[in-house]
Amino acid sequence: MALRTAEQYVTDLKKLQKEIYMFGEKLDDWTEHPIIKASINAQKVGFELAQLEEFQDVMTMESTLIGQKVNRYVQLHTSVDDLIKRLFLNFEVQPRIGSCHGTRCSGTHAINVLYAVTYDMDKSLGTDYHERFKRWVTMIQSGDLTCTLAATDVGGDRSKRVSEQMDPDLYTHIVERKQDGIVIRGAKMYMSASPAAEWHVIMSPGAYKENEKDYSIACAIPANSKGVIYIHEWPAVNAARIQEDADIDLGISTYGVHSSAMIILDDVFVPYEHVFLCGETQFGRQIGSLTGRIQRTAATACKVGTLDVMAGAAALAAEANGLNWKKVPHIRDKVTRIVTLAAQCKGCVVGASAMAEEHPSGIFIPDLITANSAKLLEAEASIEASKLLIDVAGGLTGTAPSERDLKNPTTKRYLEKYLKANPDVSVENRMRAMRLCEYLCGVSSTLQVQAIHTGVSPEGQKMTIANAVDMDKLKNYAKKLANIRD
Amino acid sequence: MALRTAEQYVTDLKKLQKEIYMFGEKLDDWTEHPIIKASINAQKVGFELAQLEEFQDVMTMESTLIGQKVNRYVQLHTSVDDLIKRLFLNFEVQPRIGSCHGTRCSGTHAINVLYAVTYDMDKSLGTDYHERFKRWVTMIQSGDLTCTLAATDVGGDRSKRVSEQMDPDLYTHIVERKQDGIVIRGAKMYMSASPAAEWHVIMSPGAYKENEKDYSIACAIPANSKGVIYIHEWPAVNAARIQEDADIDLGISTYGVHSSAMIILDDVFVPYEHVFLCGETQFGRQIGSLTGRIQRTAATACKVGTLDVMAGAAALAAEANGLNWKKVPHIRDKVTRIVTLAAQCKGCVVGASAMAEEHPSGIFIPDLITANSAKLLEAEASIEASKLLIDVAGGLTGTAPSERDLKNPTTKRYLEKYLKANPDVSVENRMRAMRLCEYLCGVSSTLQVQAIHTGVSPEGQKMTIANAVDMDKLKNYAKKLANIRD
Amino acid sequence: MALRTAEQYVTDLKKLQKEIYMFGEKLDDWTEHPIIKASINAQKVGFELAQLEEFQDVMTMESTLIGQKVNRYVQLHTSVDDLIKRLFLNFEVQPRIGSCHGTRCSGTHAINVLYAVTYDMDKSLGTDYHERFKRWVTMIQSGDLTCTLAATDVGGDRSKRVSEQMDPDLYTHIVERKQDGIVIRGAKMYMSASPAAEWHVIMSPGAYKENEKDYSIACAIPANSKGVIYIHEWPAVNAARIQEDADIDLGISTYGVHSSAMIILDDVFVPYEHVFLCGETQFGRQIGSLTGRIQRTAATACKVGTLDVMAGAAALAAEANGLNWKKVPHIRDKVTRIVTLAAQCKGCVVGASAMAEEHPSGIFIPDLITANSAKLLEAEASIEASKLLIDVAGGLTGTAPSERDLKNPTTKRYLEKYLKANPDVSVENRMRAMRLCEYLCGVSSTLQVQAIHTGVSPEGQKMTIANAVDMDKLKNYAKKLANIRD
Amino acid sequence: MALRTAEQYVTDLKKLQKEIYMFGEKLDDWTEHPIIKASINAQKVGFELAQLEEFQDVMTMESTLIGQKVNRYVQLHTSVDDLIKRLFLNFEVQPRIGSCHGTRCSGTHAINVLYAVTYDMDKSLGTDYHERFKRWVTMIQSGDLTCTLAATDVGGDRSKRVSEQMDPDLYTHIVERKQDGIVIRGAKMYMSASPAAEWHVIMSPGAYKENEKDYSIACAIPANSKGVIYIHEWPAVNAARIQEDADIDLGISTYGVHSSAMIILDDVFVPYEHVFLCGETQFGRQIGSLTGRIQRTAATACKVGTLDVMAGAAALAAEANGLNWKKVPHIRDKVTRIVTLAAQCKGCVVGASAMAEEHPSGIFIPDLITANSAKLLEAEASIEASKLLIDVAGGLTGTAPSERDLKNPTTKRYLEKYLKANPDVSVENRMRAMRLCEYLCGVSSTLQVQAIHTGVSPEGQKMTIANAVDMDKLKNYAKKLANIRD
Repeated sequence: MALRTAEQYVTDLKKLQKEIYMFGEKLDDWTEHPIIKASINAQKVGFELAQLEEFQDVMTMESTLIGQKVNRYVQLHTSVDDLIKRLFLNFEVQPRIGSCHGTRCSGTHAINVLYAVTYDMDKSLGTDYHERFKRWVTMIQSGDLTCTLAATDVGGDRSKRVSEQMDPDLYTHIVERKQDGIVIRGAKMYMSASPAAEWHVIMSPGAYKENEKDYSIACAIPANSKGVIYIHEWPAVNAARIQEDADIDLGISTYGVHSSAMIILDDVFVPYEHVFLCGETQFGRQIGSLTGRIQRTAATACKVGTLDVMAGAAALAAEANGLNWKKVPHIRDKVTRIVTLAAQCKGCVVGASAMAEEHPSGIFIPDLITANSAKLLEAEASIEASKLLIDVAGGLTGTAPSERDLKNPTTKRYLEKYLKANPDVSVENRMRAMRLCEYLCGVSSTLQVQAIHTGVSPEGQKMTIANAVDMDKLKNYAKKLANIRD
Repeated sequence: MALRTAEQYVTDLKKLQKEIYMFGEKLDDWTEHPIIKASINAQKVGFELAQLEEFQDVMTMESTLIGQKVNRYVQLHTSVDDLIKRLFLNFEVQPRIGSCHGTRCSGTHAINVLYAVTYDMDKSLGTDYHERFKRWVTMIQSGDLTCTLAATDVGGDRSKRVSEQMDPDLYTHIVERKQDGIVIRGAKMYMSASPAAEWHVIMSPGAYKENEKDYSIACAIPANSKGVIYIHEWPAVNAARIQEDADIDLGISTYGVHSSAMIILDDVFVPYEHVFLCGETQFGRQIGSLTGRIQRTAATACKVGTLDVMAGAAALAAEANGLNWKKVPHIRDKVTRIVTLAAQCKGCVVGASAMAEEHPSGIFIPDLITANSAKLLEAEASIEASKLLIDVAGGLTGTAPSERDLKNPTTKRYLEKYLKANPDVSVENRMRAMRLCEYLCGVSSTLQVQAIHTGVSPEGQKMTIANAVDMDKLKNYAKKLANIRD
Repeated sequence: MALRTAEQYVTDLKKLQKEIYMFGEKLDDWTEHPIIKASINAQKVGFELAQLEEFQDVMTMESTLIGQKVNRYVQLHTSVDDLIKRLFLNFEVQPRIGSCHGTRCSGTHAINVLYAVTYDMDKSLGTDYHERFKRWVTMIQSGDLTCTLAATDVGGDRSKRVSEQMDPDLYTHIVERKQDGIVIRGAKMYMSASPAAEWHVIMSPGAYKENEKDYSIACAIPANSKGVIYIHEWPAVNAARIQEDADIDLGISTYGVHSSAMIILDDVFVPYEHVFLCGETQFGRQIGSLTGRIQRTAATACKVGTLDVMAGAAALAAEANGLNWKKVPHIRDKVTRIVTLAAQCKGCVVGASAMAEEHPSGIFIPDLITANSAKLLEAEASIEASKLLIDVAGGLTGTAPSERDLKNPTTKRYLEKYLKANPDVSVENRMRAMRLCEYLCGVSSTLQVQAIHTGVSPEGQKMTIANAVDMDKLKNYAKKLANIRD
Repeated sequence: MALRTAEQYVTDLKKLQKEIYMFGEKLDDWTEHPIIKASINAQKVGFELAQLEEFQDVMTMESTLIGQKVNRYVQLHTSVDDLIKRLFLNFEVQPRIGSCHGTRCSGTHAINVLYAVTYDMDKSLGTDYHERFKRWVTMIQSGDLTCTLAATDVGGDRSKRVSEQMDPDLYTHIVERKQDGIVIRGAKMYMSASPAAEWHVIMSPGAYKENEKDYSIACAIPANSKGVIYIHEWPAVNAARIQEDADIDLGISTYGVHSSAMIILDDVFVPYEHVFLCGETQFGRQIGSLTGRIQRTAATACKVGTLDVMAGAAALAAEANGLNWKKVPHIRDKVTRIVTLAAQCKGCVVGASAMAEEHPSGIFIPDLITANSAKLLEAEASIEASKLLIDVAGGLTGTAPSERDLKNPTTKRYLEKYLKANPDVSVENRMRAMRLCEYLCGVSSTLQVQAIHTGVSPEGQKMTIANAVDMDKLKNYAKKLANIRD
């Protein structure tokens, strides 16, 4: 059985020397940095669930490649059922972490896309990429290794083609072809949770011209390869995470980070054994299309989990404020709306997989239009749910005092007294609920909370309008038009 | 001329001893705390513009009360024109600060509401509240003083009335009536930019029953009154602001905070000269209604300014990415949509004022239904604009590295190289533009950026769908149904 | 006093020989045709209200031109107040007719736009168009005449300029310049309620090139000029109106038609006295812009009236179904939403006028961006209100039997028995309410009713979801993320 | 092989004596009435496709019950694949008819629901309903018969329970229990396409109390049973369909009707062989729930087909106006949006089926929350698509002249000349495209067309705004806030 425990994963990860920069500094003990640690915690959940009896069906499967049970993160999608189960993995992992399990998530995409594309290349060109790739996947599956897909280049000037950029390195490319491998240079952007990975698949999606052969690459590199440098993101809220003893204020303290990074590839050597496409520009478009179809479903699926938590958080916050979510009509309406948004995204993404196409290699690929439409639905749903969550939870999502104020005796006295709402919910737990909502809404700059709540809640405004309108007058207009005389 | 300079305001403010707690500590030199200072900076803009020739009409007016030129923040709305000019004040101040000028903004509401209500009380009850109130306003106008309205009580259990709460202090009330004044206790929530104020008007909106007389209050207190304690908000992003030398990372560093606080009223004494309603429960509902009508227009008006900046920021970010906002159709469409949302809110709020009612006291009050409807429009507009801004600006709004990485020579080299997009925009300025968008979107937890941008932009997905759809088939269905045969 | 009664208007109108085609036939007694009569009825309301004491301020004003009281439909907008009152005219007329009072409505635009443009032409070119135009307006005002603006040409191939069309007549143009006047040819489209007009202003908005001088025209023609031919619209629902004794089935039987027509200008002669622009291409763009700004506000204003009736109709229909609009939370929410949409449009359009610009001629023109934004808001509001109205009123809006079934004794017995809902509302009145909703939703093909109501109402589906969701599970996810342990 | 041809269906149908009232009259040769004939045409498509080789997989299946190939309309859903294929039947049939194939569609629901419920009843109560029901289904499958589900009662006062209504007949109930069968009375509403059916399943969904046993029924009746009376709907647009030679004006002339009817059950006798539930109130709730889950997916699936046609119609109309849908950015955006809406609904409804639950009887039932959420998505999608279609197609959707005007030589000359747009599209075909859009938008009262298009198209307004906005000013605000100095 090729399944590591979460602890084995962390032990293995700690052995890797990585060059990671964040907030202006090179990190020494990078796996213990609070932000990266939160990300590693999130990746651990996928290992933990795979050890539990009740999640065997969702989290693991028998590999057709190595004949052993493997984690679904490293699976080949060889049936519609595989595709759908892989989505359920996201449905299960995501609400437990509320943030990003991208370290392994995108790895599945890379494994399946390259399985199919190398198959086609060999058929078409007589190459032996497919066998080479299967050997690599065998290693990944056997070791239950974590692997991300690194596809997006920094891109430079958007109005120019790859080969027209001012700096040839703005798209990753081969700078040298050696006897035993290639040397690549460039930078990959937006690589979610990539510091927590052990391998990266470097891939170039998109159509290239004949003179852009050096830009057409697919290969795998160990994450600690020489020349790999991470520059970690620093969104405004991350500052909160490096403060001592931060817990409540973080909303989600155990997990709760995106941990994306730029991955600089500063002349990284890749032996041919790990090179799966090397200048075959005609396959770039297919890589892009297949990756898109798989990625769109996975990205939507994880937001389903987030939307589910948002519904739960809305109900929790309402109760912390003293209101039962199911008994107050407008709150029931809004919470149900979030549930509905989650279900619409879930249905759509499962449907895209149920209508999957089989590739000649045996890999199943979700329906193109449905997968993209699901992702568009998800983006709208997330924003709407964010609005609804702020609406339900109230102004405290943007204006809560710090947990430290709960520790200072002077302020603690006032907060315990004045932030009490539901007699059955402690002020600390009310703060925790509000902070979770703050995190989930993604509204830490407080602008959206102000946009929604300044003055009075939207519901208060609606009630004002309902009470103010002269409905008899409006009904009379209607009656006259309809010739109703009594 | 009763106009202070911004410097005079700060000098006067610094004289006040205030008890302000934030992040677990009592602030010593509170006006120099980086967060409160940013809020004071925002309030200063209102003083600065009032000194400029070109803004005389918008920012100032001749007071009918004191016969001198006063800042519109302390004006009485004695005509429709006054109401509309007061909105233009918000339209002008807000895009310059991008955050909250609530210190004085809500003061205008208090001044106008109590002017009208005390007038009615005197007419109805034979009291002399109105003259008393005029004396107080005269002082505020003459001194060009900053004053906030403190109306919202902490509220306790939302399913219970004022008098049924477990703790009588959950709504502010009179705990003692003395010979020369009253003593009040309670706590006011969500008081935007209140630390920067010199006076607070304590008011109880809403309908009270006969046995709730002690909860029915309106009075004014100096902000440094004994018993006044501030507990400052601590939204997640504020942590970023206490880091040394923070600038680019803050998006808006000079301003950029909400600076709301709970105001604890721990047995504050108020002399009768500053008490304007004291147990006259029958006027509570009117206070609520009038306040709502004025506040809704002002709250919407400031978001108009924010939406205007969001449109500008979207255009700026697109250019930093290498794209001209007006030439790329989908970007023009989205930027124009933000402009349209701003214009709809602006139109609606000006319309609510143009349809104002005159109160017998001479005060003009915006139309009830329109004012509330404008605010609802604004909440939806803000959320939609946030989505559009993330869409246009791209993934960097959630994943930018820190400005410190621009200073570390190792990472600076990579960032200067790989974050270059538009040849005419420096990487630093691109970062500034992205950070501003991050701030304006209010999405610092990165969840919404991920929701919108993971994998590929929405526009990329749409293009995929447009290319994939078999339109001939769909058109053929249409042609057959319409009996079109050629 | 230059005010005709509604009867005088009809008497005068009947004197005009008009060549009107509809449904394949030339109409003989055209003013008595049921469809055109319904349109004439709608125009009469504007005359009727102007006779009533209570509407003097809204419906009439003192003309600065002729020194007499005139109907606001023929006014010059010489102040912000004039502009806003003119909108209130729409707010009042529209909910009384529920359809289109376009005969005179667009006339106001023409009068004001040409007043301003002829003023500028004379200043710039030394022509005497302005005085000529004032003489014509004097006649219109003195006679209280009805006049439409005919601006939109049929347009031909949208991808080609005016002068590049396959047929030169696809845009109206001068075919001959005579000693005493010009001869024009072309066709104007979408002319709302134009059969009921006595005059038409023919105008060419848009920018023309030097070689397109003949297309640049503004002039006025009596509606019965030789060469004027109307081809009347025939939307699918109009068939219902030519059935004998139709009343209930029409939703709005007295009014309830759009009555737009193509106006063919088959070599119509216009004496120079009525020509107000004749080849001055450089003013075409200004005509377009000014017309747009006025027209956008008026078009939005009339939909405000429609939205108001929709709110009333929703409340009426709910009651006919046995439910009190204010007591059932989801119905109150939806009806209030329609009220809010109406108020947002109203506010925005009044705001656009309150922020009007004064043209040197003394004419006030609504703000450009706000006016256009208001119109966009209105289009979305109308569609959303339509959905809400169907939702509230229910499936009968698309599936009601005919009023004739209420007369046939066999079916009458069943309908009286089985369509009874609210004991206080007769089945006939329930049918009337449903038919009014059908009309207002604009959904006579029943597709949208089916889209919304098939199976069960949206509210039923929401309730199902609210009951089915395992909220404890979702809340537990939330609690775990927030580290809430009890 | 148990498959009838369409002709056999019509021949068999014509043999039935039915009492159908419409527009105040009892229909004689009811199958030839133009409205019912259009509905019968729509039902024929399901028979026709089932005869074609290429649709065998979608339209037919091997019945586990009778061991022969049957039409999927009469299938038992015995796997997820069956459920999904049944949806594809809707996806295929709907865009070919653009209206309603409800005659057989709801029959599938009845067959599957009662199969499951009778199974449970027998298990729980020891009855033999299940075998009885299987015999009836065997007959339906063997004869390839058309059968609708009649579930919705007229309902009376919505605020009262079944047993509290003023008239006991407002919900269908047993009025007599005889030796050999029961006699039922009541009226079923909104029965889509029911005149074209050969059988009706009468069913009572919902929870009943002990004293409401007589209201708890499920049974099947031949459509020509004694006591069955249809009162046919008469939506406003139906008047157009009874005019001689109507074709173009109808938008969809071959199909294009909903043809719903009230079905009066005036003491209809049902032999016990066709009674499948008779007073077992405890199963009412299950009937409601199962029906809902199946019906929601089918109702959504047929709108997917409609949305697909709407996308095709939008592209067609744009071309008729002279514009290529894919080359004009805003049209591509809107058409793609309709495609996306269709795909989202399709994905969601397939997903609901892919996540189906197996009932112990072997029947598969779509997921409850997802199925309801899909239907809610569809209602919003339909309205949005309607707006987009009007936007793209333009004002002619509401203002086209009649096809008769194309025949009258006088008007024909003008229409051929002035309605010409795209040189490659005849005026007749442009009219056909516009009429199809009119039908699909469901906007025959022209109100929505006016709401969207009066004055200028939304795109024209947006362009005006884009040109008018002072973006430099807005960008400067942004630059100042971001401290960008160059």
